[in-house]
Amino acid sequence: MTQFLSDNVTSACPEVMAAIMAANTGDALSYGDDDGSRRLNSRFSEIFEKDVLVFPVVSGTASNALALASLTPTYGKVFCHQLSHINTDECGAPEFFTAGAKLIPIDGALGKLQPDNLEKAIRGAGNVHSAQPACVSFAQSCETGTVYQLDEISGLAQVARRHGLSLHMDGARFANGLVALGATPAEMTWKAGVDVLSFGGTKNGCLAAEAIVFLRPELAGTLPFLRKRSGHLLSKMRFIAAQLEAYLSDDLWLRNARQANAMAARLSQGLAAIDGVRLAFPTQSNEVFVELPRTAIDRLKQAGYDIGDQELDGLAPPRFVTAWNTREDDVDRFLAAAS
Amino acid sequence: MTQFLSDNVTSACPEVMAAIMAANTGDALSYGDDDGSRRLNSRFSEIFEKDVLVFPVVSGTASNALALASLTPTYGKVFCHQLSHINTDECGAPEFFTAGAKLIPIDGALGKLQPDNLEKAIRGAGNVHSAQPACVSFAQSCETGTVYQLDEISGLAQVARRHGLSLHMDGARFANGLVALGATPAEMTWKAGVDVLSFGGTKNGCLAAEAIVFLRPELAGTLPFLRKRSGHLLSKMRFIAAQLEAYLSDDLWLRNARQANAMAARLSQGLAAIDGVRLAFPTQSNEVFVELPRTAIDRLKQAGYDIGDQELDGLAPPRFVTAWNTREDDVDRFLAAAS
Amino acid sequence: MTQFLSDNVTSACPEVMAAIMAANTGDALSYGDDDGSRRLNSRFSEIFEKDVLVFPVVSGTASNALALASLTPTYGKVFCHQLSHINTDECGAPEFFTAGAKLIPIDGALGKLQPDNLEKAIRGAGNVHSAQPACVSFAQSCETGTVYQLDEISGLAQVARRHGLSLHMDGARFANGLVALGATPAEMTWKAGVDVLSFGGTKNGCLAAEAIVFLRPELAGTLPFLRKRSGHLLSKMRFIAAQLEAYLSDDLWLRNARQANAMAARLSQGLAAIDGVRLAFPTQSNEVFVELPRTAIDRLKQAGYDIGDQELDGLAPPRFVTAWNTREDDVDRFLAAAS
Amino acid sequence: MTQFLSDNVTSACPEVMAAIMAANTGDALSYGDDDGSRRLNSRFSEIFEKDVLVFPVVSGTASNALALASLTPTYGKVFCHQLSHINTDECGAPEFFTAGAKLIPIDGALGKLQPDNLEKAIRGAGNVHSAQPACVSFAQSCETGTVYQLDEISGLAQVARRHGLSLHMDGARFANGLVALGATPAEMTWKAGVDVLSFGGTKNGCLAAEAIVFLRPELAGTLPFLRKRSGHLLSKMRFIAAQLEAYLSDDLWLRNARQANAMAARLSQGLAAIDGVRLAFPTQSNEVFVELPRTAIDRLKQAGYDIGDQELDGLAPPRFVTAWNTREDDVDRFLAAAS
Repeated sequence: MTQFLSDNVTSACPEVMAAIMAANTGDALSYGDDDGSRRLNSRFSEIFEKDVLVFPVVSGTASNALALASLTPTYGKVFCHQLSHINTDECGAPEFFTAGAKLIPIDGALGKLQPDNLEKAIRGAGNVHSAQPACVSFAQSCETGTVYQLDEISGLAQVARRHGLSLHMDGARFANGLVALGATPAEMTWKAGVDVLSFGGTKNGCLAAEAIVFLRPELAGTLPFLRKRSGHLLSKMRFIAAQLEAYLSDDLWLRNARQANAMAARLSQGLAAIDGVRLAFPTQSNEVFVELPRTAIDRLKQAGYDIGDQELDGLAPPRFVTAWNTREDDVDRFLAAAS
Repeated sequence: MTQFLSDNVTSACPEVMAAIMAANTGDALSYGDDDGSRRLNSRFSEIFEKDVLVFPVVSGTASNALALASLTPTYGKVFCHQLSHINTDECGAPEFFTAGAKLIPIDGALGKLQPDNLEKAIRGAGNVHSAQPACVSFAQSCETGTVYQLDEISGLAQVARRHGLSLHMDGARFANGLVALGATPAEMTWKAGVDVLSFGGTKNGCLAAEAIVFLRPELAGTLPFLRKRSGHLLSKMRFIAAQLEAYLSDDLWLRNARQANAMAARLSQGLAAIDGVRLAFPTQSNEVFVELPRTAIDRLKQAGYDIGDQELDGLAPPRFVTAWNTREDDVDRFLAAAS
Repeated sequence: MTQFLSDNVTSACPEVMAAIMAANTGDALSYGDDDGSRRLNSRFSEIFEKDVLVFPVVSGTASNALALASLTPTYGKVFCHQLSHINTDECGAPEFFTAGAKLIPIDGALGKLQPDNLEKAIRGAGNVHSAQPACVSFAQSCETGTVYQLDEISGLAQVARRHGLSLHMDGARFANGLVALGATPAEMTWKAGVDVLSFGGTKNGCLAAEAIVFLRPELAGTLPFLRKRSGHLLSKMRFIAAQLEAYLSDDLWLRNARQANAMAARLSQGLAAIDGVRLAFPTQSNEVFVELPRTAIDRLKQAGYDIGDQELDGLAPPRFVTAWNTREDDVDRFLAAAS
Repeated sequence: MTQFLSDNVTSACPEVMAAIMAANTGDALSYGDDDGSRRLNSRFSEIFEKDVLVFPVVSGTASNALALASLTPTYGKVFCHQLSHINTDECGAPEFFTAGAKLIPIDGALGKLQPDNLEKAIRGAGNVHSAQPACVSFAQSCETGTVYQLDEISGLAQVARRHGLSLHMDGARFANGLVALGATPAEMTWKAGVDVLSFGGTKNGCLAAEAIVFLRPELAGTLPFLRKRSGHLLSKMRFIAAQLEAYLSDDLWLRNARQANAMAARLSQGLAAIDGVRLAFPTQSNEVFVELPRTAIDRLKQAGYDIGDQELDGLAPPRFVTAWNTREDDVDRFLAAAS
């Protein structure tokens, strides 16, 4: 029974598992010197239509925090949405990896940063009493399931550039945002002004595979040491590389994301049709945020769905997340229970 | 062709891979709330004959650094052998995770800490000008392939206790040390005075599975937050738990280690019989350190063995490492090439 | 010509300078083992009517950051007003000293934290994905020149206690707040629930003298090491102790603060009487925040007053600060110029 | 009665105190924008015969740790003598300020680094498993009272340059080393290859005044933020600037150092003439290290000298330190007591 709790409760997809098995042959150099790992830079460079440098890791938190640490001095400021994952859900990982940089939380409609709010928040450059503006970080798709349009990304990039800041994209759900826009990876990143990307695979069918992608390779100089020093340079790195290669083959990543997004749309439309239901955010990727009437909550619980906590504390609307392996059946059974 | 470069260049063993596949069924709660992860505490408690708390991670560097960070204040001192992995091979991970504690490197024969050297090094307690003694860390088996006897571990523990320090064991090659001694996990750890263990699986047949084992669970309070904050709480933790469960089933871990150790012994004896060869350290686990005559090096290179770097810089004797999947054939072919 | 730029541009008062001279006699043990430093604990304990532990330092930033570091784990959250000095004016010192704790900025009328806003902000305890609530910090008097009433402090303390958090007071202008309330040091701190106080002297007549006062001495265990390690244990500490002793003698600190507050009141009333002037915050201690009409600004500039920057960027209303040595003349000359 | 315990137990010299008094006139811009502070760069540039950038602080620990933090990445290595102050007496301040860099302790005769030992210790550049060589730090005069000759400094600099490392001099006793050599400040620093100097005043007649001197100003970019963030940018900085100006006027600093060194020489020669006394290190600046026979210790104690601790723990020979205000009388009384 699919609970729609999160896209990280799902299994890994068969193609990824097969690649892991296939990588388990004979010896391979450790710490990323294996053939598979060595192929990643060129594979990602093809996909992003630009020479990039890629550093695989096994968690989104590590991917974000390492990217930020490579862009921000210890006395730096990272500007982000107040609801962003880096600000609320990583137990201070960015502060840890940067050795004490400040995250500056900014409000913004639909969970998205806006250029004018960002502009107002960027303060203190050159003032020794203030932590120094260093970096802007935003998520695509973002924590509220919404998606930045290309010109919205460019808008943030322009503000960042004007102040000499770098631009980081938390792409834990990169593929979901990409297929939502119908854009190319290049268009959604460096062509719009993104410097460094935390590219996610785990939520979209991998076992544990993320990658820090330097769209401006000249920024990557400290990353190898920061990664090793944080315990994120795995010895048998071939198994992470294998996941990423399979994930990027035959459009697997795009197909997985399209399925997840389509199921979220179906779920969202179905819920919106129920009396008393209100969407808290427009459903643009694979997350649905809804305010449910008491009766619907009760019916869902009775049917065995686990939505207790969110409802009780009243702090956030219930969130339902679809994934690469969500089927129409799963959605329809849920909708039937809620109606 | 087996190069004996390291035990981390090897593939994962079939039982571990099968367990990973088996864990890939349906949804499972993320971040260690899955059933498999929940079983780990009791499984390790059985093996260690004591209630322990276990925190899986995916690299030995993370395992060591997190363990040390849970035992050491930012202004603390960690006493360790000068050749220890934490001091030389982790790019400052202990300093990073502890937010600046000092590693105090100590000399000692055979790569092992000795109580008297340790005793002399423990200085400055209560003196505000000195970083504060907090922890002793040693490896079993250790970087030089040697193995501490149980009374040697007790000896270190007594010094640590006398000064109020905790005792950490880097067990990246725990199983190799264990079968070398023929001891039980309890005897080699808490019964000898070890407080926290970094338990290794990756070098002995796992894909990427290590565990921080608190033999004194009351010391584990900060670990969950330190782990999350460092990006080492994986979302699909079930796949790490599955590896550890398989590894500990049917004596797989012990069988793998016995094979590795036996092959190292065979290699060591064979090399020692070659004219001009001198063992740099006694071979007690799965690592062989030898000083090879020029002629042997040339013969090995000609046969395709990769031993160049070690020989050229003259800093350390060549190291040859066996693993769970080293076969007699592999050893004999190498010996034939060297002779 | 008094510019009212800040209370830290002022000279030190004669009594303090005399004490520094008097301390310059013969040898004295270093690093706080001198007689004067040793007397501080009992002197502060008298004044606070409670056994306290005192650690002198030379800057308010150090005093705040060290206090917070003694109360907050590396993965902790410090709740504070978004306009607070620790959040905006210390270049990330709290993040540095705590090794990466998060400051959680909270809005609040008159620059003050309110219990309900605080209550809403305290989130995530026990949730491994969230930095952990550890400490509440507020300033008395605060950055906007307003002063917490005793029951307002108690109100914050109750929220803090309910969540198991400690309560820190940034008392860079402690004396100004104290005389504004007409309270005793005990009433304004531990009797209202404050655990640790950053006690300021520099802005109120000292050369460079602050003190971290542990109203709950059992919290002070790590402070000696944190202070040394940050370079704030001065060798000739006698000269800091001498300042604090003089400052606390014969009500010097209270007299200085009363003078500053009285002059601020005079200035505030005078300005408020000018056409078009609006007080941005009520004047409750020694800072006056006003919105000035263009004409008044021009007149003041012509008269040689330096108020350009604040007016130009439009971000904050001009601030005028009085001090221990501000005279009625200074105020009246300024008012005449502005009118 | 002069105890010779340290040069930091002494009072400040009259010229310095007079300058502090003189600086206490009227308002002055805070945080180093006062006229006196602004004059420091040109004053030091004269003295060092080169454009330098100067950052005053109030403790030697801060001066060293800030200098090292400006030269070393978080994953860096600082090479230093194992007996150096930064390694043994600063409670881990360098590790704190650098956010976890490693100090690599090196042995060397007379407490001095030697090029060949240094060369051997510099390892791991470009190897991701190793913290990265960043900086060499040595003290002049050093912890054992010995003094590097100019060519010895150049020798260290050559090794540092060959490996692309910067060179830091801990000059807590800079003046004592300088007058011992009879060299110019330029010769003893940048002409010999020193990049950044921690220039000390406190031990040689100041109240609390040190300065980080960037002999290569292009390395100073991060220092203003690191200093503020560590609480070492004092608001009334004019009082530190005043000390340094007085200290550097009329050769005060050189006269003070010459007196201290001369008295150490007198003390050393007197002690060496006593039966059973052995100098532990040659007396080259203002510190005398001697092994005293039991009888001499007893006689000194009976006469009221405080030398107990050093003798009891047997770890280090008793150290006797002279200062700017040590008189021949003080020395002769001590010698009489010891004989």
